[in-house]
Amino acid sequence: MNADSFQRLDKVVHEKSRMAIMSMLAASTELSFTGLRNSLGMTDGNLTTHIRTLQKAGYVSVSKSFRENRPLTTCSLTTSGRKAFSEYLSLLEGIVKQAKQCNK
Amino acid sequence: MNADSFQRLDKVVHEKSRMAIMSMLAASTELSFTGLRNSLGMTDGNLTTHIRTLQKAGYVSVSKSFRENRPLTTCSLTTSGRKAFSEYLSLLEGIVKQAKQCNK
Repeated sequence: MNADSFQRLDKVVHEKSRMAIMSMLAASTELSFTGLRNSLGMTDGNLTTHIRTLQKAGYVSVSKSFRENRPLTTCSLTTSGRKAFSEYLSLLEGIVKQAKQCNK
Repeated sequence: MNADSFQRLDKVVHEKSRMAIMSMLAASTELSFTGLRNSLGMTDGNLTTHIRTLQKAGYVSVSKSFRENRPLTTCSLTTSGRKAFSEYLSLLEGIVKQAKQCNK
């Protein structure tokens, strides 16, 4: 078992709700804040906090605009966010594979 | 994407260091505290804290004995700990598979 793999897991991505947010964003170009919130069943406050953490890490960008005279906030993964998510997934995949083998 | 999968991830297991501890214990019948600590490169205090959390959840049992007149602390997964770890791995495997598909 490579103990180092676990410590290399990006803690920004590893939190459950942020994993969910990044997974959703990875599957599309951008998503509205409202869409994300409804799909994930999160509160405004909770989603805002996690999006802020992801923004600070440079993984998510947020843009504000207007649609039909109503404010629209959209979120998307940055290039660095997409890279971090993809690396996180590869690392996690290796960990799961290894652990399943040992757990037989 | 099934948002519910993320929230179902067992938070006791999901913490990086505890994932590592449970992975190591899953691969053997029991391990000494010292062995675990050295393999994972953790401090005594840090390992103690995580082991306590795992004990409280009923996932790890700790036994104290003597070997060659020196105290020996050993840790092992309980049946419920083995089950929780295995369920966690299956859930995580599904999440990784789904996320990789969406991330192509």
